Amino acid sequence: MSGGFAVDVPSGRPASIETPRPGDPRLARLSLNQWTTRHWGVTEAVTGCVRSGIPAIGLWRQQIAEHGLAESAKLVRESGLRVSSLCRGGFLTSADPTASAAALDDNRRAIDEAATLGADCLVLVVGGLPAGSRDLAGARDRVAEALGELVPYALDTGVRLALEPLHPMYCADRAVLSTLGQAVDLASRWPAEAVGVVVDTFHVWWDPGVLEQIARAGDRIASFQVCDFLVPLPADILMGRGMMGDGVIDFRPLRAAVEAAGYRGPVEVEIFNADIWAADGNEVIATLIRRYITEVF
Amino acid sequence: MSGGFAVDVPSGRPASIETPRPGDPRLARLSLNQWTTRHWGVTEAVTGCVRSGIPAIGLWRQQIAEHGLAESAKLVRESGLRVSSLCRGGFLTSADPTASAAALDDNRRAIDEAATLGADCLVLVVGGLPAGSRDLAGARDRVAEALGELVPYALDTGVRLALEPLHPMYCADRAVLSTLGQAVDLASRWPAEAVGVVVDTFHVWWDPGVLEQIARAGDRIASFQVCDFLVPLPADILMGRGMMGDGVIDFRPLRAAVEAAGYRGPVEVEIFNADIWAADGNEVIATLIRRYITEVF
Repeated sequence: MSGGFAVDVPSGRPASIETPRPGDPRLARLSLNQWTTRHWGVTEAVTGCVRSGIPAIGLWRQQIAEHGLAESAKLVRESGLRVSSLCRGGFLTSADPTASAAALDDNRRAIDEAATLGADCLVLVVGGLPAGSRDLAGARDRVAEALGELVPYALDTGVRLALEPLHPMYCADRAVLSTLGQAVDLASRWPAEAVGVVVDTFHVWWDPGVLEQIARAGDRIASFQVCDFLVPLPADILMGRGMMGDGVIDFRPLRAAVEAAGYRGPVEVEIFNADIWAADGNEVIATLIRRYITEVF
Repeated sequence: MSGGFAVDVPSGRPASIETPRPGDPRLARLSLNQWTTRHWGVTEAVTGCVRSGIPAIGLWRQQIAEHGLAESAKLVRESGLRVSSLCRGGFLTSADPTASAAALDDNRRAIDEAATLGADCLVLVVGGLPAGSRDLAGARDRVAEALGELVPYALDTGVRLALEPLHPMYCADRAVLSTLGQAVDLASRWPAEAVGVVVDTFHVWWDPGVLEQIARAGDRIASFQVCDFLVPLPADILMGRGMMGDGVIDFRPLRAAVEAAGYRGPVEVEIFNADIWAADGNEVIATLIRRYITEVF
């Protein structure tokens, strides 16, 4: 349970297993979020998934921009991979009209990109308090207003927006959307096919109401992301995510709740972790596949 | 909004004021939590409060043990200070029977100490996941069971237990009680005079339901603690507390909600912050008094 990254078995956990081969039916719902292998470009990530039998990928706009949108869409389509998500839009809390308009424009571009890529959803990280502001209620209101602007465009484009509640420790600087219940409340203002929610184990595991809120989310669940919560957190709390089994999260009750709520989509592994980013991408994928089976499946 | 500690005015905030003198009616509800001036013993803290006109103090068991319980009780009684809280009991999540029994014994001693000191309440930090455990629901159940053991003793002794929900970032290692709503749910199993809750701005400010939960808490509110939430958090997240005005919290709506719920007790300033601990205690108190007036009062 340290900030490190054990390639093999976390202490006190069941013995490791052989890495399942491509075609293993247990991998049918696994997805690699590209940020887990952050230093890989689109080509390497797609190749890594195909080679290891991971049938879906969550893409990031930065890497798509580097590789080119049309080329990325072609590569992914030809690979046969499902695009479980595009990360990310959002950052909708500015009180400045110019900045706010620019954020809406950028989100419309992100919606277009998600459509071109055929992504299941566009993940939205809604943004934190504007610099110097203490008006949390105001920031939350502006997120709702901005969504009101974006939803018609998303519906026209056929892209589902996925609101991601982030752990409350990021409330000030990253997302004023802090609980799954709050995300469901907000999403419920629009049709479920237009606005869903992300259930990310790292962000919601602590919530005493999480199981009830997952049940309540029902067909609003647009994405299920997994990674572990490390204790202690590293100095940069953004990097506090760990490989499943290296932290404190009990994944199976959360996975069962998400499935009981009706979700049948990909289980996307998204890990921000300096040690994992420094490791060999193929090693990371092999470990990820084994841990998915031993900890989540 | 950095990790530092500005003795004067935080950037973008109203100009400072003259430090109110002892007897100023605006100080009538202020309390110094002793951990804010951590390196002061009981004598220095009591003297510091009396000299600066702070009429109440929150005491810590460590300092009481060093000074002696009877001597501390006598000193505080003769000073005329109100004891707004004793910090702290709790750590009730162990699944090991021996450790669990030892924790209950320690909490009974803490209850005795609170009674001897005439404290308004004994603050309980309930404890995190036991080492190596991922059973969050089990840990939460054990807290409830342990409280069931302690409440009759607290009622007999005339000491009110105050459940403190901690920020969810401490859920794994410090307190599986993560929201005010959860604390009120738990406390409600017993009479309000036996089990109350702590509202600490640092821990609850992010909660989209905090105002409703404060209203719901009503006469369960046993303690109101204030300090700011710093952005970015320092490497040791326990030290992420700041002087009021140095972080992102808007205190007045929270204070108004606590008062609207019926709370009329002390407003205790409790800050864990390496820079504040390194500063001169009298300077800290003077700043604290000014900031209480400009940011909270």
